[in-house]
Amino acid sequence: MAMNADLPLVLFDPHPRRREMLFDEAMWARLAALARIVAHDGEGRIPDTVLDRHIGEAALVIGQTDLPSDRLAHAAKLRAVINVEGNFLPNVDYAGCFARGIQVLTIAPAFALPVAEMALALALDLARGVTAADRAFREGREKFGLSGNDGTYLLTDSTIGMIGFGNLGRALLPLLQPFRPRVKVYDPWLPDGYLRDFGVVPAPLDEVLSTSQTVFVLAGVTTDNQAMIGARELALLADGAAIVLISRAGVVDWQAFTAAVASGRIRAATDVFPVEPVAADDPVRENLNLLLSAHRAGGMRPIFRKIGEMVIDDAELILKGLPPVRLQAARAETVGRMRSMPGREYTKEETR
Amino acid sequence: MAMNADLPLVLFDPHPRRREMLFDEAMWARLAALARIVAHDGEGRIPDTVLDRHIGEAALVIGQTDLPSDRLAHAAKLRAVINVEGNFLPNVDYAGCFARGIQVLTIAPAFALPVAEMALALALDLARGVTAADRAFREGREKFGLSGNDGTYLLTDSTIGMIGFGNLGRALLPLLQPFRPRVKVYDPWLPDGYLRDFGVVPAPLDEVLSTSQTVFVLAGVTTDNQAMIGARELALLADGAAIVLISRAGVVDWQAFTAAVASGRIRAATDVFPVEPVAADDPVRENLNLLLSAHRAGGMRPIFRKIGEMVIDDAELILKGLPPVRLQAARAETVGRMRSMPGREYTKEETR
Amino acid sequence: MAMNADLPLVLFDPHPRRREMLFDEAMWARLAALARIVAHDGEGRIPDTVLDRHIGEAALVIGQTDLPSDRLAHAAKLRAVINVEGNFLPNVDYAGCFARGIQVLTIAPAFALPVAEMALALALDLARGVTAADRAFREGREKFGLSGNDGTYLLTDSTIGMIGFGNLGRALLPLLQPFRPRVKVYDPWLPDGYLRDFGVVPAPLDEVLSTSQTVFVLAGVTTDNQAMIGARELALLADGAAIVLISRAGVVDWQAFTAAVASGRIRAATDVFPVEPVAADDPVRENLNLLLSAHRAGGMRPIFRKIGEMVIDDAELILKGLPPVRLQAARAETVGRMRSMPGREYTKEETR
Amino acid sequence: MAMNADLPLVLFDPHPRRREMLFDEAMWARLAALARIVAHDGEGRIPDTVLDRHIGEAALVIGQTDLPSDRLAHAAKLRAVINVEGNFLPNVDYAGCFARGIQVLTIAPAFALPVAEMALALALDLARGVTAADRAFREGREKFGLSGNDGTYLLTDSTIGMIGFGNLGRALLPLLQPFRPRVKVYDPWLPDGYLRDFGVVPAPLDEVLSTSQTVFVLAGVTTDNQAMIGARELALLADGAAIVLISRAGVVDWQAFTAAVASGRIRAATDVFPVEPVAADDPVRENLNLLLSAHRAGGMRPIFRKIGEMVIDDAELILKGLPPVRLQAARAETVGRMRSMPGREYTKEETR
Repeated sequence: MAMNADLPLVLFDPHPRRREMLFDEAMWARLAALARIVAHDGEGRIPDTVLDRHIGEAALVIGQTDLPSDRLAHAAKLRAVINVEGNFLPNVDYAGCFARGIQVLTIAPAFALPVAEMALALALDLARGVTAADRAFREGREKFGLSGNDGTYLLTDSTIGMIGFGNLGRALLPLLQPFRPRVKVYDPWLPDGYLRDFGVVPAPLDEVLSTSQTVFVLAGVTTDNQAMIGARELALLADGAAIVLISRAGVVDWQAFTAAVASGRIRAATDVFPVEPVAADDPVRENLNLLLSAHRAGGMRPIFRKIGEMVIDDAELILKGLPPVRLQAARAETVGRMRSMPGREYTKEETR
Repeated sequence: MAMNADLPLVLFDPHPRRREMLFDEAMWARLAALARIVAHDGEGRIPDTVLDRHIGEAALVIGQTDLPSDRLAHAAKLRAVINVEGNFLPNVDYAGCFARGIQVLTIAPAFALPVAEMALALALDLARGVTAADRAFREGREKFGLSGNDGTYLLTDSTIGMIGFGNLGRALLPLLQPFRPRVKVYDPWLPDGYLRDFGVVPAPLDEVLSTSQTVFVLAGVTTDNQAMIGARELALLADGAAIVLISRAGVVDWQAFTAAVASGRIRAATDVFPVEPVAADDPVRENLNLLLSAHRAGGMRPIFRKIGEMVIDDAELILKGLPPVRLQAARAETVGRMRSMPGREYTKEETR
Repeated sequence: MAMNADLPLVLFDPHPRRREMLFDEAMWARLAALARIVAHDGEGRIPDTVLDRHIGEAALVIGQTDLPSDRLAHAAKLRAVINVEGNFLPNVDYAGCFARGIQVLTIAPAFALPVAEMALALALDLARGVTAADRAFREGREKFGLSGNDGTYLLTDSTIGMIGFGNLGRALLPLLQPFRPRVKVYDPWLPDGYLRDFGVVPAPLDEVLSTSQTVFVLAGVTTDNQAMIGARELALLADGAAIVLISRAGVVDWQAFTAAVASGRIRAATDVFPVEPVAADDPVRENLNLLLSAHRAGGMRPIFRKIGEMVIDDAELILKGLPPVRLQAARAETVGRMRSMPGREYTKEETR
Repeated sequence: MAMNADLPLVLFDPHPRRREMLFDEAMWARLAALARIVAHDGEGRIPDTVLDRHIGEAALVIGQTDLPSDRLAHAAKLRAVINVEGNFLPNVDYAGCFARGIQVLTIAPAFALPVAEMALALALDLARGVTAADRAFREGREKFGLSGNDGTYLLTDSTIGMIGFGNLGRALLPLLQPFRPRVKVYDPWLPDGYLRDFGVVPAPLDEVLSTSQTVFVLAGVTTDNQAMIGARELALLADGAAIVLISRAGVVDWQAFTAAVASGRIRAATDVFPVEPVAADDPVRENLNLLLSAHRAGGMRPIFRKIGEMVIDDAELILKGLPPVRLQAARAETVGRMRSMPGREYTKEETR
């Protein structure tokens, strides 16, 4: 590709994503029209030698690229780092970026809608026993009509709890509105008035747990909230209440969680696990009261193309001197508190 | 119970429901304060002898009671027949009722909300493969992340079709609104302008089928629409489209439907079957592409208590000389066209 | 127009509307394709001689036509009377119609949406002082910013009362939902459970008045509720509360209402008056605290064409043997209780 | 007030607001519990001598305080500047703040909801002629019913344009949703995909103007868009279309705007003027086609208390090391492009 030397330089280093996951040819051409692109196309991250050769010219880095303070010191023209993976690894001198006004952006908002739809799917499944009833039908144990509806409930007019009210909570709330729920939210990083502006009721964790028919766990893992929901907290749930774990497994005490669900006193669904993939002999596979999903809530193929669109949109805005609007800015205050997911390599199949 | 002879008489004949399904003691006392009640408490319907003794005094009949024209001729004070089962059997002289201004009411609207929530649950399950992914996880076949999301899609911004737009469609539509779908509706009994007032697009059946990612079958069975959706119609669905069958199995050609789903070209869920209960060796049990629910969408325990509330509310209004508002009036034009469900006796368990 | 003698006969007698208000040529042609039409085109109602000549053949009467019991006795083929004016005058033997299964339909639902939009317009005007502030600006008395905002309030998160919850209330409620109001409703014809299904709170009249920032009067006048809102009731309103009178003036004690508003303690808007048109020297014209609208909420030109569409849609359904769905059926129980509007002749200008 | 020397220091300099506008005693006590407060209580801004004495210790500055680069150089502990007026004056070294990671926050979001409600109020007024009809009634020129409805239209199912889609547009959109409008948005700072995620249609300015029944001008004035809407653009509006000017008068060519409205071809409302207050003899006062509001859309008394709540909430978060969530961060890219309102001193009355 012929490149206009007057165009700003973009370093493209998408690992563990791949270019094809994010961009089709037309989108890539759109990016190429905005900038000279130095792209790493093979396995792993961009080699240090390439990186060091270009960092001084780069206006944007798109990737989870190693940017320690000494390398950052050479990035004289750098305006933004766009992390296309979604977690903040400790391989970037974030403080250095903030001090220099270099924006650190993440694609996390792209996952909010698919995760919200999935969270509702799981909550409705628990409310109506969809998966359990299908299984029973296969096994000749189905019960028709009222007999098959023991313990089922409507979402309409029920009390719904949310633990955490960031991107996921804000995306889920509108999907719940037609059910006219009373929504109670626990989020220690958010003032009550902020929550009330969304029409939800701020509440302490214990109240959320003890008064909700359905509880959504939507909080990321931080240094403060690991295993925040343990045996004591799970015991607060009413008999037959449902808990949907969709953000990070680390928010719950996994042993306490799986035991409480296995007892049959409460119902639950999870999309996340302490270690992924899950071992072949993990007892969670036998836990029939726990609806299982293999970290499938966010990573839909169309979403990755949407991420590509968001990345180019914001790249274009930044290069024009305008504020980005689609990606989320990392915050100096919290970037160090967020715990990344346990590492998992993408399969070949995924990265195409 | 002491009865005030000045109160109007109500014949209560709830078969195949039971009084306890519909009313708790406080509700029953509320009804008893409005009327003298002659109730049949045992198996089957009220005996003819009891019926004939009281029909001349009855202001209301609550039940699916035999009311042929000769019996109706003696029902001089009868104002309304409240069918608490939900289907119109041919054991009532409906024309005679309409000619006399005797209202025929049904509890059908009570089922609209639970069926609508279930329809959304099934549609989300098909969109995201919830039940299939849980099954795979149990069998050690789960795929994490993007690899586990082949063929999944969002409801948001998708095209959704509805076949039939009566109680069920009107209850489902608000639950879909946050997904901002383009909704196309086929209902030959409803003018285009009526549909447009709901913000949906009226469309011919073939267009609904060929352009929707998700199709909800929400029509009751009539003399006109049996097996309306056959092999030709199913072939119109796009690859990977989903069909949720939630009203009556008779609307589809069952063989064509199960074959199309088994092929894997489309995905489907059903809550209804041509014969219920389903035989132990019915091949549908092996059809892993068809999400199975044993006629569980409407008959939830809290709904029967809601029916009881609706019955008493309307009984009270009728006895005060006001129009009923909670139940649905049978229409002279269509009562003869509706096909009842295949008969199924309620189990003892259900009727408690 | 050549008429097919096999087509059913429709008597068209639109007074005080005119054919051109309701139908354009294409719509009229659509009606003409469904039926032989005997239309009265001049002033006043169809002459008795014409009526009597055709009533025996008529399948539909579209109009506020005189149908006393003896004439009805000859209407052997009559299936429905479609009142295109909107009030039930005592010139029809309604009981006779109901006993014969002849439907009596009214166009009232067509007005619900324009009246609801207007009710919101008036409520927002009172909340923010729009008209008063414009008047002040013309007179050089405007105050900028906060100084000009004394007593203004938001609808968001406020308590809103509705008196009556028929077509108007049901059309207004969705327009209010984004303001997340707490809605309290008083309607003695509706059970609490019916209201709760809409997400509103049923409440006694006094509670609605004393706890709402904005009260909408949406009830028709009946034999039971004339002047229901008098000095005692108005005194229950909080200082600065607003009342929007949009259904019928007869629901309030007019003297008490105008006096309470003139005092400045409460604010109000009205679209209706005890006598219309209002006398040139009526003191209401000087009442600057009362926002005045000359019965303009419903009668918009596009609405009359919509009425035409609704009439033809339902005529077509009825002639095909299907239930009408767009117009509203009069109820035997209440048709005698509704009080008509004070008579007002339409001007020539209006009827074109 | 006893102050704990260990608490962080807050400089409070609210001019042109006053402390009492923002905080009641309980709120002030809440702030005082978080920090040592150095407050300026008199006329004008905090004196330089006081400022210079404390700036080195200040963790927060609450006010539109003079912070040129040399003073900023001494503000070693400063974490945020909270502008409680709402405009960015050139008396702050914004670039210096951004380079140091000092947040610059504004209360602008607090005005979005009241302005959105007012924008809807004005749009409904124009659609239905509320103010004009009230004026006619006072003058004995009212027309009843259809005759009084010439040119009125419904918002429902209409096309609505928005020019600018920042805080105001995002607050207005939900209020419009029940009207099921087709919403077209022109905002050159926002990518199409961002707008589509809100369910609106991105469109060029000319298309927004030429196809919308109602156009809301919601853009702030920047160096790029002054007088963007001139005679050519206004000529694109359809006959009878409405334009609601609610953000800044500078976005329109005022002469062209008032002339177009005076002609009667289009209708309009404005809450803003090129110079405020408006001169006593300004011809706009005679322009009866222009609905006038004296910059009253945002500055409601309850909103100032809400601002106080937002300020304390974010001050508390910042002092705890968490990101602020209620106020809006100024953007390095745009802070220099925004044009402030023409200066207007608050009256004594307002500032209490």
